[in-house]
Formats: sequence, structure tokens, C-alpha cells
Amino acid sequence: KQKIWEIVFEAETPAGKFFDVALLWLIAVSVVVVMLESVETIQASHRSLFFTLEWVFTILFTAEYLVRLWLVRRKLRYALSFYGVVDLLSCLPTYLTLLFPGAGVQSLLVIRILRLLRMFRVLKMVSHVHGANLLGRSIYASRAKITVFLMAMAIFAAIVGTLAYILEKGQGGGIDSIPAGIYWAVVTMTTLGYGDITPVTTMGKFLTVFTSLSGFAVIAVPTGIFVSEVANAIEKEEEYTVACPGCGSSGHL
Amino acid sequence: KQKIWEIVFEAETPAGKFFDVALLWLIAVSVVVVMLESVETIQASHRSLFFTLEWVFTILFTAEYLVRLWLVRRKLRYALSFYGVVDLLSCLPTYLTLLFPGAGVQSLLVIRILRLLRMFRVLKMVSHVHGANLLGRSIYASRAKITVFLMAMAIFAAIVGTLAYILEKGQGGGIDSIPAGIYWAVVTMTTLGYGDITPVTTMGKFLTVFTSLSGFAVIAVPTGIFVSEVANAIEKEEEYTVACPGCGSSGHL
Amino acid sequence: KQKIWEIVFEAETPAGKFFDVALLWLIAVSVVVVMLESVETIQASHRSLFFTLEWVFTILFTAEYLVRLWLVRRKLRYALSFYGVVDLLSCLPTYLTLLFPGAGVQSLLVIRILRLLRMFRVLKMVSHVHGANLLGRSIYASRAKITVFLMAMAIFAAIVGTLAYILEKGQGGGIDSIPAGIYWAVVTMTTLGYGDITPVTTMGKFLTVFTSLSGFAVIAVPTGIFVSEVANAIEKEEEYTVACPGCGSSGHL
Amino acid sequence: KQKIWEIVFEAETPAGKFFDVALLWLIAVSVVVVMLESVETIQASHRSLFFTLEWVFTILFTAEYLVRLWLVRRKLRYALSFYGVVDLLSCLPTYLTLLFPGAGVQSLLVIRILRLLRMFRVLKMVSHVHGANLLGRSIYASRAKITVFLMAMAIFAAIVGTLAYILEKGQGGGIDSIPAGIYWAVVTMTTLGYGDITPVTTMGKFLTVFTSLSGFAVIAVPTGIFVSEVANAIEKEEEYTVACPGCGSSGHL
Repeated sequence: KQKIWEIVFEAETPAGKFFDVALLWLIAVSVVVVMLESVETIQASHRSLFFTLEWVFTILFTAEYLVRLWLVRRKLRYALSFYGVVDLLSCLPTYLTLLFPGAGVQSLLVIRILRLLRMFRVLKMVSHVHGANLLGRSIYASRAKITVFLMAMAIFAAIVGTLAYILEKGQGGGIDSIPAGIYWAVVTMTTLGYGDITPVTTMGKFLTVFTSLSGFAVIAVPTGIFVSEVANAIEKEEEYTVACPGCGSSGHL
Repeated sequence: KQKIWEIVFEAETPAGKFFDVALLWLIAVSVVVVMLESVETIQASHRSLFFTLEWVFTILFTAEYLVRLWLVRRKLRYALSFYGVVDLLSCLPTYLTLLFPGAGVQSLLVIRILRLLRMFRVLKMVSHVHGANLLGRSIYASRAKITVFLMAMAIFAAIVGTLAYILEKGQGGGIDSIPAGIYWAVVTMTTLGYGDITPVTTMGKFLTVFTSLSGFAVIAVPTGIFVSEVANAIEKEEEYTVACPGCGSSGHL
Repeated sequence: KQKIWEIVFEAETPAGKFFDVALLWLIAVSVVVVMLESVETIQASHRSLFFTLEWVFTILFTAEYLVRLWLVRRKLRYALSFYGVVDLLSCLPTYLTLLFPGAGVQSLLVIRILRLLRMFRVLKMVSHVHGANLLGRSIYASRAKITVFLMAMAIFAAIVGTLAYILEKGQGGGIDSIPAGIYWAVVTMTTLGYGDITPVTTMGKFLTVFTSLSGFAVIAVPTGIFVSEVANAIEKEEEYTVACPGCGSSGHL
Repeated sequence: KQKIWEIVFEAETPAGKFFDVALLWLIAVSVVVVMLESVETIQASHRSLFFTLEWVFTILFTAEYLVRLWLVRRKLRYALSFYGVVDLLSCLPTYLTLLFPGAGVQSLLVIRILRLLRMFRVLKMVSHVHGANLLGRSIYASRAKITVFLMAMAIFAAIVGTLAYILEKGQGGGIDSIPAGIYWAVVTMTTLGYGDITPVTTMGKFLTVFTSLSGFAVIAVPTGIFVSEVANAIEKEEEYTVACPGCGSSGHL
């Protein structure tokens, strides 16, 4: 059992590394299949191939889930942990289509895309990605400041959007309500610029110039915050790749 | 009176915290109502609901305004301070519709969106947002440099826009005056890129390539300024959440 | 003569400060007039007003140019310096329309927009913008690295643009030559995204995803360069606002 | 032979510098010719000129390749090195059109655009670009973190794209499969914003606001990583411009 633990949860041994890389590929291929299934022309011509592949993936992921459940000591804690839920969601939807074969459940299948989240667990363990923890910690440390920044941006967008609504209301430019104005303000401020809603009045164009220049200058703010956090984090750079024997997740040993 | 002061102006006690969070929600909901009112289809079907809600909010905000006015010692100074004016503007427009029931005043109602600004006061006090002050101080410290940068950008936009006007005048690309050229230059330089005005001549496309690459490189400038200011500000990181007993605003004690 | 020198070239005395601010406003208003003249509907209805204003500005700028020429010791050096040429170009075009009243010269008038460049001289002297010199020095110090970066971007754009041309040639997406491909690549890489040329094939969309993500990550490079230069420049922060008595430009005393 | 080595591979002597600058221009002109050839109207009217120029370039590049091959001691190692392959690809396609005159080979000619990559070798040697090595080393040092960041972005794009597909499926906005959703998510997240696919439902617009604000905040991450790497790299700034006598590439002496 100790040996299987090392293969499934750790990435230090050759076998453990092989398991992780194989799992990474399996997840990648299964997600590509989910994506291709959603393209109607491809789905129509390869229906049976997709059906077979899907069941192969589901059985493999179910086996992996059961092995993980058998290995960890605190089974409930694993089952309710973030990765435990994601592991379950990776295989459950396919079984549900057996029980309820209606079309509504069919659309449940897209939640299989959440298998992608399992990649993060594997990434955390494969030792050649040294930067992931550092990034994670920096983002975590700057969360309060980034939240304040995003709230200030949201309030700024609401006020600019209202101004745009006052200036452009009924001019045919598409800004006919405050929510539409806010949508336009965010699209402009972040320099996204779809062009589906553009100002038509002269004052509206002035507002565009002001808003996009603000967005251009304001992008400095999250960067400034994050740069100082990364500088802090680099000083205490340590890597934790050993998984906790209790619940199977790494980082808190 | 001291106790009410602590509830309304401070965020240290449980009651003060509860008051702040309740106020935050009240502002958020009232702003959402203002936004939804501006969508014509929703406004037509829920007219009386919006009418009732609006008066509930207005009465609550009026009560809060009067309590704040009663609490502070220097009443005029509060009434003329930034937040005093915003507090007044939060409830005044609704009363104006009673006095002058014409349609013109109706459009005054959108200034109720400025209630959003009151969120900043609450945010400043709720103690779990440590970063707001730091951000504010960094932006304040870098204001001169950012202004110079924005002015240089504006002059650059004016020259590029004039060049675009010379190259594209009468070519059907939409750049038929210098102001239109400047609007195009800002949209391109900030990498906003609506696509409502695009160059059609070969030289105009060269100018686009040059302008957007400049914008791409130039975004480094505000970031560089701000990063060094944040680094400075972090060193002297202190939080002021106690409100001044004189005028009720925090930060200058 | 010393007194006039202090008014025209320096910004330390009240009179000098007043002269600078007045000049700043004069330039701003004259540039706005040039811009409005280019809008056909406005030009048609205010022809004589614009004509009068233009001659007022031209005579004032000519007087200023002659005074500066009279004040400096090395007259030729001033006349051939950057600001000397800009000062001359500010008034020359209007006189040319007298000598050659043809329509071709009329379009020469747009070079009056270069009057904007004269704002930088004034800005340099008005003492409340402390950041301009710092910015200028940081940009100057990072010019070699930024040039290498822009060249690498250009080579990257050329290769991605060629790839796009191979993938999209004759598909109706608008990428029908390598130059068009490069234009598309730059528009995508800088996240400008006009939408006038978009990929239509699946491979082209993959290339878009790859190119825009690259641009997103690569924007870090100029920022990284510039941030370290600003940090360097802040250490040796000094301001030079005294103009050289020889040629009238500040910064090299 | 030692003298020719210094001219071809080094940039210290005047002759070596002249050779590098001449080569830089030759590459630039030959690439412009390849680009113009791809524009059908220009190609039709200048066919024989392009033909002659192409053979002149090809013979010069072949001569250079043979000289380099003759100069280096370990010929196979050079031939298989990155620059050896690029040097070969610079002249090979033109010869192939002689052997196989079919139209299919004609399209092979675009790989001559890879001549651009040879510019990097020359740049590395011309001593006035001090920043190139520093940039290269910083990018190399941050490659692991940037890779993790791009992978996290890709997973985020996949999940947001799937969500967009669920919300917008069959609404006429163009997001009718998960791959289309991911394409939209990347275009939105990087603030590219072509506008060829835009959300039409209210929930889809909410998702746009959320995604573009995320992209706006997240751009801080690669910048933060890179800034700290540049700061590290500046400390150990040294330049290597001497080419290895074994294989002719610089940087590993």
C-alpha cells in the first residue's frame, strides 16, 4: 500500500513521475474529446468513437478515484476536499446519462471540462515547475489589494457607464440603459474594444478617449501591487512537493 | 451620543461593523435598482415596485444623513466635505421629482448612481481591506508623474492623429478631420481597437503598426512609475481607520 | 535685457511663471483652432473667425520667436536647435499661404499642429511637474533595450504574419499577402484587435490564440526593463530648470 | 583564414563590423523582396525584377554559408546547429524551384522569411546593443514561471469558454461549440477584442465583464515575474560577444 501511495500521490520516484505524466496526458486527451464532441459536425460523424472513448476515460478515472479513496486515511476529508470533489465530477456525469437518458442530462456532460482542474494537482507535484508555488503565494498575498482595486474599477465603470448612458441615450450607438453603459465602460476601460457598442456623439467620443487613457494608466496599479508581492515571495522561496499522508494534498506539511 | 458615533462612524465595535456592512448592502441594492430602472422593458413592467423601493431607500439615506449631521461637531464642514455632498446627492434627486414633476427632472435621477462613491467611505473603515490606503497613497504620490505621462500621451496622440488625417483624408476610412484622427490615435495607442475607424491606405496601416507598437512599449512607463511608488509606500505602511471627531472623515488624525 | 531673459526663458520669477502659463494657454487654444478648422462643417460656418484668430496667433508667435532670437547669444545655434526649428514652424506656414495662395499650401497648415511640441519646453520649466525629467532620463537610459525588444517583436510579427498568410491565403479572411499578414500579426500581438482582418480557418484561430497569449506575456518585457531603469533614476533624482544662457535650452548646465 | 574568421564571425574589427552591417541590410532587403512578392499586383508587374534579385540574394547567401562551413573546425556541429540550419534554409528553397518547377514548391519559397532569424546572430555581435543578452537571460530565467502562468491561463480560458458555450449556445452570437467558446475567451481575456464573436445574452455580457477584468488584473502576473528576473539579471550584467572557435556561436565561451 505504501508503494501504491508513492506512485499515486508522490512524484519523487520514477514510477510516480510516470503515473503523473500519464495522468496529465489522459486528462488532456479526455478534455479534447469533450471539446470536439461539442462541435456539431464532428459529433455527427464520430458519434460511436466518442461514445467508446468517453467510457474508457470514465472507467479509468473511476478506478483512479477509488484507489485514491482507498489510500488516504481520512476518506471523508479527501472526498469533501477541493480535489476530491473535482475527481468525483470527472466521472459522475457519464454515469448520470445511463440513469437519466434525457437530453437535459446530456448538457450536464460539459462539466467534465472541470477535469482540467485536476491538472493543477499533477503540476504541483511534477518537480520541474518550480514557479507554481511562488506564483500562488504571491497572488494569495496580494488578494486584498487586488480586490480593493477591482471594486474601485467596478465603481469607476458604473459611474462612467452612467455618464455614457446620459450622453448617448437614444442616439443609436447601442447605449440605451445603464447596464449597457457599464458593459461599454468595462469593454473600453480594459482596452478590450469589441466594437459592438461604440459612441456616436462627440461627447461620447471624448468620454472614450478619457476612459481608455484611464484604463491604460490604471493597469499600472495591479502590476505595482503584484511586483512588490513577488519580490517579497522570492525571498522566502521554498518548495513543498510532499503530499500530506492524511488527506493527500500537498503544501501544508 | 458617543455610542451612536461609534456605530455610525467607526468600524471597531460589532455594532459599528454591522452598520457598515448593512449600509454597504443598502447602497449596492439601491444602485442596482437605479440601473434596472434605466432598462425600458424592466421599468415598464415594475414601475410601482421601483417607485416604492426608491422612496424606502431615500428615507433611509435621509435619516442617515441627518444622524451624521447631528453627530459631527463642525456641521458646516461635514456638509461641505466630499462625503457630505455625496450623502446629500444620494437623497436629494428623489425629493426634487416631488417638487418639479416634469420629465426633465426625471433624468436628474441618474445622479443617484453617485451613491456608489459612499462605498469608499465604508470600505475605508471595514478593517479587512488593508490595501486601500496603501493604494491611495501610492496613486497620490505618483500623480505628478502620471499627469506628465498622460499629457505626453495626449500630445503624441494629437501628432499621430494629424498624421493619420493627412494620410487618410477622403479615403473612406472615416478619418476625415483632425479630431477624428486623434480619436483613432487614442483608440489605437491604448490598444483599445474598436474597429469603427480603421486605416485603408498602405501608409495608414504602417502608421497603425507603429502606433500600436508604441502603445505596447509605452505602457511600461506608468507601470514603472507606480511600481517604485508602491515599493516606497510599503515601507511606511500604516493604517488609519479612526474617524476624526471634528468632521467625521478618516485618515488625517 | 537680463530681465526679459528671465521672463521668457526662466520660470523662477512670478513674471516668468505668468509668461509660461500664458504661452501654454496660447498654444493650447491655437492648436484647438487648427483641429476645428479641419472639421469641414465647422470650417464652412466660421471661416472668417478662424482666419482672424490664425493671424493673431501667428503674429504673437512671430513676436515671441524674434524676442527669443534677439535674447540668445548664439543665434544660429538656437535657430538650428530642436525648439528653434519648432518655433519657426509654428508661424511659417501661415505666411506661406500669403506667398502661394494655392490649395496645396493650404494642406501645409496642418504642420502648425507641431506647436504642441513647444508645450514640452514650457512644461520642463514650470516647477510643479517634478516627474518629467525623471521620466525622460529613464526612457533615455532604457532606449537600447527597448529598441532590441521592438526589433525582436518586429521579427516575431514577420514570422507569425507569414505563417498566417500560409494558413489563410485565399480563404476570404483578408490575409492575402505577407504584408497583410504582418499587419494582422501586429494588430493581434499588441491586443489591438480592430477586427477588420480576422482568421477564418481553424488553424488561423489557433494562431490567433497563440499570438495574443504571447503578446499578453511579452508585455512584461518592456515593463521589466523600464521598472529597473526608473528605480535607478530615482536614486539620482535632481531637477534642472535653469536655461543655458548660450542657447536657451535647459538640462545641460 | 584567421583574418576571414574575424571578419565573418567577430564584430570587433572595422572589417568585421562592416561585414555585419552589410549582412543586416542584405537580409532586410531580401526579406522585403519576399514580402512584396506575396502581393499579387506587385508580383504580376515586377516578375523578372524579383526573379533576378532573388537569385542574387541566393548566390550571396550560398557563398556566405560555404565560407562559414569552411571556417569552422567542427563542420557537422555547425551544420546541425540552430543558425546552421537557418543559414541553409535561407538559400535552399530557391534551388528547389529549379529541380521541381511545380507550383507546390513555389509556396515553399515563403520559408525564406526565416532569414529574419539570422538577424539575431548579427545583432548579438554588433556591440552597440548592450541589452539583448540581458533580455535573453531574463526571459530564459523566467521561462518556468511563464510556462506555468500560460498553462493556468489556458485552463482558465477552457473553463470560461465552456461557460460561455453553455450560456450562449444557439443564441446567434457565434459561440456554438466549446472550441469557439475558448477562442472567444482568449480573445476577451487578453483584451484583444476582435468583435467577430460577441456575447448576445445578458449572462454572456456579465461573463465578458468578469473575463476582461480578470485579464486586466492578471496581466500583472507575468510582469511581476519578469521584473524580478530583470532585477536579478542586471546585477550580473556581462556581455559575451566573442564567438566560439569550435562551432561559431557566441555566448558559451
